[in-house]
Amino acid sequence: MNLFAVSPEYIRAIQPYQPGKPISELVRDLGLNKDEVIKLASNENPLGTSPLAREAIIQAVSESSRYPDGSGFELKAALSERLGVSADQIVLGNGSNDVLELASRIFLRTGTSAVYSQYAFAIYPLLVQAVGAKGIAVPAKNYGHDLEAMLDAITTDTRVIFIANPNNPTGTLCDARDLLRFIECVPPDTLVILDQAYDEYLSKADKANSIAWLKNFQNLVITHTFSKAYGLASVRVGFALAHADIANLMNRIRQPFNVNSIGLAAAQAALNDVEFVKLSYMSNRTGMQQMVAGLDQLGVGYIPSHGNFISIQIEGQQADTLDVYKSLLHQGVIVRPLGNYGLPNHLRVTIGIEEENKKFLYALEQALKEPESH
Amino acid sequence: MNLFAVSPEYIRAIQPYQPGKPISELVRDLGLNKDEVIKLASNENPLGTSPLAREAIIQAVSESSRYPDGSGFELKAALSERLGVSADQIVLGNGSNDVLELASRIFLRTGTSAVYSQYAFAIYPLLVQAVGAKGIAVPAKNYGHDLEAMLDAITTDTRVIFIANPNNPTGTLCDARDLLRFIECVPPDTLVILDQAYDEYLSKADKANSIAWLKNFQNLVITHTFSKAYGLASVRVGFALAHADIANLMNRIRQPFNVNSIGLAAAQAALNDVEFVKLSYMSNRTGMQQMVAGLDQLGVGYIPSHGNFISIQIEGQQADTLDVYKSLLHQGVIVRPLGNYGLPNHLRVTIGIEEENKKFLYALEQALKEPESH
Repeated sequence: MNLFAVSPEYIRAIQPYQPGKPISELVRDLGLNKDEVIKLASNENPLGTSPLAREAIIQAVSESSRYPDGSGFELKAALSERLGVSADQIVLGNGSNDVLELASRIFLRTGTSAVYSQYAFAIYPLLVQAVGAKGIAVPAKNYGHDLEAMLDAITTDTRVIFIANPNNPTGTLCDARDLLRFIECVPPDTLVILDQAYDEYLSKADKANSIAWLKNFQNLVITHTFSKAYGLASVRVGFALAHADIANLMNRIRQPFNVNSIGLAAAQAALNDVEFVKLSYMSNRTGMQQMVAGLDQLGVGYIPSHGNFISIQIEGQQADTLDVYKSLLHQGVIVRPLGNYGLPNHLRVTIGIEEENKKFLYALEQALKEPESH
Repeated sequence: MNLFAVSPEYIRAIQPYQPGKPISELVRDLGLNKDEVIKLASNENPLGTSPLAREAIIQAVSESSRYPDGSGFELKAALSERLGVSADQIVLGNGSNDVLELASRIFLRTGTSAVYSQYAFAIYPLLVQAVGAKGIAVPAKNYGHDLEAMLDAITTDTRVIFIANPNNPTGTLCDARDLLRFIECVPPDTLVILDQAYDEYLSKADKANSIAWLKNFQNLVITHTFSKAYGLASVRVGFALAHADIANLMNRIRQPFNVNSIGLAAAQAALNDVEFVKLSYMSNRTGMQQMVAGLDQLGVGYIPSHGNFISIQIEGQQADTLDVYKSLLHQGVIVRPLGNYGLPNHLRVTIGIEEENKKFLYALEQALKEPESH
């Protein structure tokens, strides 16, 4: 009996996450000029990073040989003040992926199950599989969460429910009142993870006041990221808000230095740059209008989105969609195919700045006119 | 039944890792001047960071809104070339803590056990406890690993053995031949994790050629860090070397973007700065001589160390040791008490640059003369 043979079958069966193709990889693979390539594949902020955060990164270099503050004292204090929660309700993570994993690892294992929606963020089923729990994917309703069906799917061994709001990659949004009613119906010994990675792209009217719900629900964890509107995907900072008892459990099993110093400093500075986040929101609104108008003009279907991305539907077979994807690549435009989300005819496109959206729409038009066959 | 009540008892029982006190915290707590404080508490590199790595960090700022390359293509290629292993034998981690955790999570769970030495790195028991496995701490021999006793401690459910070489916090070293014989005797379905975080501080003669062993042992994982001799504790980069099948399993359950972009760029640059690592080695050798001579002169006992730190023994009760620790703090010198390692009369002191060692030795002399009582 060797070591590989005694590893869990559920881990051997994992199909790792497929990230958006990095620009450097496209440049390597197709010999394109780096400056001509645009990446609309990972829902990154097309405005880049807040200048305050960039400055904080450079300042942090002076302490580069030191371990991070493992307690994240200053960032937690800043979040606490901004969000009106106590510091002991906050768990910092190496991206929100990390806090999603911490919650999963506490409550899920072989013999338990987790409920999530069809077409929900690909990380959820991976987290569930990594700990040997059973994943229950509830069929989507108009590409979004079918909350009633998700309630019905809960079994006695269900310990975690994942909700992405807005959802990635479909951009769908649950109404705040429906969400609250949903949480009220979930058994108190089942955790609801409300993933609000794209919350900053919502209008005030669309935002759920979910932090207020924490008072009434010990079984609610809200997750956020600095990777999107805060423009800090590179440095990996996310956080969870929860009842102090649950946050305490998550903090017990996190790696003592899970968030790097540069991320801590950059996130704190980015949090203070309210103007940059506002600008990112406005830019996304304008860009979304441009994108939707362009797609309408081309007669290309799409799922109306509340995020900083839009998933478009290519007519025909999966092969045609991949042809369009490849044609876009050859034109220096990276988007994300959604085959691994069970959406083989969709491509997810991040909303870029005006020039990028224009370039994408032009490239898409070319790709649809004369599909390439590589 | 609420959610906290259904969380595993073994997670609720975890006592989180106690990091070295950050300088900022001491400044906050005691109102000291930041520039007068020296931190010899976390085995950081007193020379700071390689200038090449610092430059790489600043360069990486231009891509701060982008996700890291989740495959770590370039850093793995550089490691592969330097170490003579194939890229698919490498797992990159958010510090070596991350790769230690990945290996643990694959092979350990309730019903399994892990073997480690008394006085070994505090992270090992925490990792074991976080997954509900049983930890078997084998009594140390002269503060170091008793390899024969560790072999005897292996039971049929033992899936992981941790060896830190040199060991932190005692600085003890296993002989390379003894280590190899040990690995030969371990059952093939039990993983040996050989943690070489402090390997760069060993003389050539003392280094084990452990990479060569990977060819013969599928059940060997070697871990390394960029936090020590490479001076990059802030950006969290470590890596594991293993059989490709085992590395593959670890890569399946790691977070897709577990290593941040700044860390990837900095580590690659640091790897190329051979001169800086050599300098760090030499500085540590000289500093260790200075420290040992000073301790001898003061008549203070210590455990001879192969790392970039030395654990000193204070005569008397634990209270006396804590008095010395507090007196050092008040004099602006942060070291690490080892009570949570079962060494209540020891303090671990990182080897600093000449001025720091001098300041520590002076402060220690004062502390021993007139023990404070706070």
